[in-house]
Amino acid sequence: MTQSKVQLLLTGNELLNGDIVDTNSAMIARELAETGIEIKRKVTVSDDLSLLVSEIRQMSSMADVLIINGGLGPTSDDFTAQALAQAMDLPQVQHEQAYEHLLAWCKQRGTELTPANLKQALLPRGCDIIANRIGSAVGFKVNFQRCDIYCTPGVPAELKVMLKEQILPALAEKSTGKHKTRITKFQVFGLGESKLQQLIHDQFPDWPDSVELGFRAGDPLLELKLTTRTPAGEAEKPRCQARLSALLGQHIVAEIDGTPKSLAEHVLTRLIRKGQKLATAESCTGGLIASLLTQIPGSSQAFEAGFVTYSNKMKTRMLGVDPQILASKGAVSRETVLAMAKGALEKSTADYAVAVSGVAGPGGGSKEKPVGTVWLAWGTAKNLQSHCLLIPGSRLAFQRYVAAIALDLIRRSLNETEEIANYLIERSFK
Amino acid sequence: MTQSKVQLLLTGNELLNGDIVDTNSAMIARELAETGIEIKRKVTVSDDLSLLVSEIRQMSSMADVLIINGGLGPTSDDFTAQALAQAMDLPQVQHEQAYEHLLAWCKQRGTELTPANLKQALLPRGCDIIANRIGSAVGFKVNFQRCDIYCTPGVPAELKVMLKEQILPALAEKSTGKHKTRITKFQVFGLGESKLQQLIHDQFPDWPDSVELGFRAGDPLLELKLTTRTPAGEAEKPRCQARLSALLGQHIVAEIDGTPKSLAEHVLTRLIRKGQKLATAESCTGGLIASLLTQIPGSSQAFEAGFVTYSNKMKTRMLGVDPQILASKGAVSRETVLAMAKGALEKSTADYAVAVSGVAGPGGGSKEKPVGTVWLAWGTAKNLQSHCLLIPGSRLAFQRYVAAIALDLIRRSLNETEEIANYLIERSFK
Repeated sequence: MTQSKVQLLLTGNELLNGDIVDTNSAMIARELAETGIEIKRKVTVSDDLSLLVSEIRQMSSMADVLIINGGLGPTSDDFTAQALAQAMDLPQVQHEQAYEHLLAWCKQRGTELTPANLKQALLPRGCDIIANRIGSAVGFKVNFQRCDIYCTPGVPAELKVMLKEQILPALAEKSTGKHKTRITKFQVFGLGESKLQQLIHDQFPDWPDSVELGFRAGDPLLELKLTTRTPAGEAEKPRCQARLSALLGQHIVAEIDGTPKSLAEHVLTRLIRKGQKLATAESCTGGLIASLLTQIPGSSQAFEAGFVTYSNKMKTRMLGVDPQILASKGAVSRETVLAMAKGALEKSTADYAVAVSGVAGPGGGSKEKPVGTVWLAWGTAKNLQSHCLLIPGSRLAFQRYVAAIALDLIRRSLNETEEIANYLIERSFK
Repeated sequence: MTQSKVQLLLTGNELLNGDIVDTNSAMIARELAETGIEIKRKVTVSDDLSLLVSEIRQMSSMADVLIINGGLGPTSDDFTAQALAQAMDLPQVQHEQAYEHLLAWCKQRGTELTPANLKQALLPRGCDIIANRIGSAVGFKVNFQRCDIYCTPGVPAELKVMLKEQILPALAEKSTGKHKTRITKFQVFGLGESKLQQLIHDQFPDWPDSVELGFRAGDPLLELKLTTRTPAGEAEKPRCQARLSALLGQHIVAEIDGTPKSLAEHVLTRLIRKGQKLATAESCTGGLIASLLTQIPGSSQAFEAGFVTYSNKMKTRMLGVDPQILASKGAVSRETVLAMAKGALEKSTADYAVAVSGVAGPGGGSKEKPVGTVWLAWGTAKNLQSHCLLIPGSRLAFQRYVAAIALDLIRRSLNETEEIANYLIERSFK
């Protein structure tokens, strides 16, 4: 079985009218990836019998494995069994095993077997049942045009159990002998996707084909993914990892094998490990930095307080910023953010502080301080740094990126690095 | 143009390997639905040039309109322009308008135009540009096999603006002659979807078929949608609107024709209209309420300050909460949130305050104050109210729902209503 020959067919009006977001196919993809199998193509159609029939015919002629998801329910818009039977020119007959399952399912619930439910036992003649130990809809499998077709229920919990317990083992058995796919990810901040790609391209012209390189622009962390599918790739990978680590240095937030963590989580983990605390003083980000930190369970161990000083008056009242500084230098100035950070440290018992003040827009910009201007101050009482950046974009994008930079600056401070972040050079303003 | 002839082609490995859940197509579907257009079929393919080429050829032969999403970026796995050129047997040439856009985009950021970015100006000869006023990737449009093909960027914010400002108007123009679909929405808060549906079903058994009723569970506002597609429906609609208004009362946050507004935006609009200011005092929501408010342009007119007092010590230092109250009653108590709200009003010049303190979880719960317990206090110095609720769910869901309730309580205070919010009854605790 070649990897390119697994396809996915989803059915359901709700998947096409915007009522729900399709999470099933991401789940199927992740489960298959564990077995080293990739999905190359996916088609989603509305609950329309003739569309389904022609799609099944076409896809099964292209693929070795076709997973169909949805349309197994009892209602009149559930067509999968009927469509598959039509596509294969087979009659739909009552499947005894499916019928027994429905009887048992109804009995367990103390309900009668309705004609609607009975429809769920009418399957293409000769198909194999895939048991459903949660819901009423059994899955089923046929072979058509040399393609294994697996029909699965749309309910996520039922689908997941069926995949794990029955479909994946069957697929794995077919693909024995193949090498296991392994994935390593780097989370990167401070380098754009195109720049990162260019950098690797320029520095490593001899990058081995056996270590596939993938990029995913995140919000805000970028993911750099190394995938190997062969023993040769696995042998090459450590050298690739070492070279990337040396090349990217502090731009690498983390190297991960499992679930990616947020920037805020990385900052909190480091703070907790050091037994230190953080306070935030926010103007233009309006509480977003504090909110990102406090989304993380256990953040109270390291996050002490957030001062959202949106007006000048409150910068003075809450953080003790000298009104003369505000009058002479303005709220968006080095002096103000330094005073805000100092105030946050003094008014709390935090070891680290980060302060931001800027022009988030769309209004409020001037020639000297256009929309996108932001001053940041960060560090400890003994070592407070400050910098001015220009971050153009929408208000929300500005706030998100500034919050990410604020968190990244704290991360770098905690790492006690000499390396200067890229954005402090490229986005520098004034 | 018949409705069945709009198809969607999505490209990106990340959409097939389980790395991300595709939210773009649900957004496209909702936007198109506003214009009365349905998507019947959607295909997702990996970043594979030959697959894309054959898909474009096939889909454009079936559809009147094909929207392609993704693959416009600067990296080597972005193939849309190349695939479209190949499918149409056209050369890829540097498009002057796209080139100008890239130059301006780089200039605004103070960066150089890299070869990678320059690739974004290499488009199928003769295509029309769809401007992108946010990102680097311009969209473009061609007509092939009598099908209008729109190529759009994968970044959701860029896609959304392009759809709203350029693609939808173009599609709407093509569908003239048909009766215009008109949609009116009510934004509702404090009633669940099934309860709302039941209520309307019970109260209005004679609801006219010509006024289609739709529901969309939002986060946190629920949308109740009235769609008319005929003159008869339009004639019936005002009576339906009036009956819904009477039935739902203060549960209705707003009746809207255009873009839905957030709860925070509704609160700010009311505050600004009254010339009043708000301060927040947050423990368990950790700055989320302040962040939701300050996302809105112009929020400085009505949002004064946010106190994120995450530790007990900071509740005393920043808001003057009596340490004896914290010691005897605990941080999650009526006395504490009242003192927090009072402190926020006293330490600022705000007219309104809202304070929250609760157990967001997953840790920190006790038998008396389980995870999900939250105390809220809200109102003016003269009229501070408080209430305890139980909001079970994940940490993030808890924080989001509590923030929404806090904003809704301020909205109701500003409306000076006697009506008691449903959640204060149904979620009441202690």
